[in-house]
Amino acid sequence: MKQLTLGIIGLGTVGSSVARILKENQALIAARSGYAIVIKQGVVKDLSKSRQIFDFPITNDVDSVLDDPKIDIVVELTGGVDTPFEIAKKALRNSKAFVTANKAMLAYHRYELQKIAGDLPIGFEASVAGGIPIIKALRDGLGANHILNIRGIINGTCNFILTKMKEQGVEYKEVLQEAQDLGYAEADPAFDVGGFDAAHKLLILASIAYGIDAKPEDVLIEGITQITQEDIAFAKEFGYHLKLLGIAKKDGDEIELRVHPTLLPKEAMIGKVDGVMNAISVVGDCVGETLYYGAGAGGNATASAVISDIIEIARTKSSPMLGFKTPSDKLRLKPLEKIISAYYLRILVSDKPGVLAKIATIFGEVGISIDTFLQRKAKNKNHSTLLLSTHSCSEAEIRVALQRIGDLEVVQTTPVMIRIEK
Amino acid sequence: MKQLTLGIIGLGTVGSSVARILKENQALIAARSGYAIVIKQGVVKDLSKSRQIFDFPITNDVDSVLDDPKIDIVVELTGGVDTPFEIAKKALRNSKAFVTANKAMLAYHRYELQKIAGDLPIGFEASVAGGIPIIKALRDGLGANHILNIRGIINGTCNFILTKMKEQGVEYKEVLQEAQDLGYAEADPAFDVGGFDAAHKLLILASIAYGIDAKPEDVLIEGITQITQEDIAFAKEFGYHLKLLGIAKKDGDEIELRVHPTLLPKEAMIGKVDGVMNAISVVGDCVGETLYYGAGAGGNATASAVISDIIEIARTKSSPMLGFKTPSDKLRLKPLEKIISAYYLRILVSDKPGVLAKIATIFGEVGISIDTFLQRKAKNKNHSTLLLSTHSCSEAEIRVALQRIGDLEVVQTTPVMIRIEK
Repeated sequence: MKQLTLGIIGLGTVGSSVARILKENQALIAARSGYAIVIKQGVVKDLSKSRQIFDFPITNDVDSVLDDPKIDIVVELTGGVDTPFEIAKKALRNSKAFVTANKAMLAYHRYELQKIAGDLPIGFEASVAGGIPIIKALRDGLGANHILNIRGIINGTCNFILTKMKEQGVEYKEVLQEAQDLGYAEADPAFDVGGFDAAHKLLILASIAYGIDAKPEDVLIEGITQITQEDIAFAKEFGYHLKLLGIAKKDGDEIELRVHPTLLPKEAMIGKVDGVMNAISVVGDCVGETLYYGAGAGGNATASAVISDIIEIARTKSSPMLGFKTPSDKLRLKPLEKIISAYYLRILVSDKPGVLAKIATIFGEVGISIDTFLQRKAKNKNHSTLLLSTHSCSEAEIRVALQRIGDLEVVQTTPVMIRIEK
Repeated sequence: MKQLTLGIIGLGTVGSSVARILKENQALIAARSGYAIVIKQGVVKDLSKSRQIFDFPITNDVDSVLDDPKIDIVVELTGGVDTPFEIAKKALRNSKAFVTANKAMLAYHRYELQKIAGDLPIGFEASVAGGIPIIKALRDGLGANHILNIRGIINGTCNFILTKMKEQGVEYKEVLQEAQDLGYAEADPAFDVGGFDAAHKLLILASIAYGIDAKPEDVLIEGITQITQEDIAFAKEFGYHLKLLGIAKKDGDEIELRVHPTLLPKEAMIGKVDGVMNAISVVGDCVGETLYYGAGAGGNATASAVISDIIEIARTKSSPMLGFKTPSDKLRLKPLEKIISAYYLRILVSDKPGVLAKIATIFGEVGISIDTFLQRKAKNKNHSTLLLSTHSCSEAEIRVALQRIGDLEVVQTTPVMIRIEK
């Protein structure tokens, strides 16, 4: 199998996840990309601080990666703006593909990078909304559309804080402390709660949607630090969700770019996104509204996006139509009877003594335990409707139980069964 | 500019939309794809029935497209299984790229097609969930992941019916009639409400996620025709959403494939998707849950997906990093003061006569009209909190009003303002 060689610069949370997943999901990624992906060299700032053990060599010399003619792709997973920009430029000048998760660097230098890159691929799916493939969706999936607007929950810290304020009725400062304790907020949270992180991501999305070159300083930015329970109560009273949104909107030949707390009508799908989760709503002139939801941060989710870029670079133009070239010879279809689920049943019975006992006995004999149970008068006054849900059992078991229940004389019609997904 | 030539087979709702959008969004699509996309020939079954006027020639002879060496891409937008499969085979054998929206054909013949295609590209984004780019998300965006499960609301007719049953408290048959009147359900609805349409789409998704080759006959399929208000009431009582889901789930080396009505916990994001909208939740081992939401049907939404495939085929490997090669020379950033929004304000005032009049006067003078208004006692008993929302005005106007209100002696702290998105 052909080989593709990586140098990874930065082995913190995301870099370590990339290395681990490339190893653990090696066979799958090879099948999807058509290449064996090999990490040739890792780079860390301070070798003495690197506690983890990797199965590839580690150095603190960036140039040993950038100048290595055997490295095909430079994967940059550090922070900051200037140093990563220098790394990117040198990688591209040395004819390497470049993959980054660095939103701050892109917020300032994305068009310069694109110009330097020429025909060399640059991947940056991980720079916005972690594992959600929003860059590819916007650039490739919605390519036919004039984008009318983008509205994104693209900072998990803020969404976590606003959700907790709504659910627990406590004030901002208290929730911020909880978020910091849980690791959802930094010790210095200003970059997140002030809206600056969201502004960086918004600029990247706006470039793809509109080709607009603007800098963080050009964006209207307000954070969530002033929100109180009075605002939350107002939102509830008048049927709004309160979210920190990044908004890019086309108005004639002008583009609005803004990040601020926003009240949204309660029907709006993006308003329903709670906790640390991210989501981006995109309205296109052909497709209408589409929305993309998922984890916006975390090592594994971000690594998922980084690796999707590596796979995209690896793939030739003729990537297999169905992702894999042939059907799997390992996986097979599960027989229906073996599927495990919880079940809800609706059973119409005649009102006679002992009906419930008969049905309960059947469940007991088949080995199914009941979770909830309701009995209602049916329209026909001599009948009752039993509504019940079960704990998990197999399709085979529930079918036996249904058959036996259906055969009871007191049961008036074939019982109706609906599966419950937990 | 280089040219890419299409033959479109089938000019119904979707085909007509494809033709119209390729024309209307011509400049944008050329910028994104690097090609002028030209329709050379359209094919319809019955020339006498074709009422619309197109600016390209129409024929009823399929072979005139399939045998034309100048046509690069055959776009197949008809129905059925056998005839479109023959068209696909002939197109590929004549070395043409092939784009289709035909889920039924793919549900049966997708692996045969992939084999025949070899290195020729086949696009089928439109075959599942209309305009939502779920095929690309699953195959490209989540390529690093072992897919643990897929749960999709992939039939808009069923979701519309179940939503209406929940919201209006009416029974299945009545809502079906309404859906038929609105054009959301076919005169013969069995294919949709019986779960068969969803099963076709599920098979396509399962191939990409797992490389599993199965046929519609292998899928556990149950429709929604038996659902009653009693089931809806039970779901409400115990905190469930009731949805028709297509489910593909990995369990060891077995894959479950099933379509059936499903009860979902009320926190589940996919349970919050109402009306004719579609959504697909995908859980990957690295990324966790991601969800993709949008219109699953309709000419324009489906055409958006068809054209995204055409653009993907047109693009060389070195597609521009930011979608457009250079920043737009037509679009510019809107000045903040010109942004129009509705606003919510929180103002802490001392309890003195005439306070409200003073504030209302300022709004009147600036030209902002008030939408809702609440007054609450503040913690400090000599103060009150005013909570109000405005109708739309400009950022410049609200800033003037805020400045003047903040300057009032009775106003205790800087007023807090939150924008409202409608």
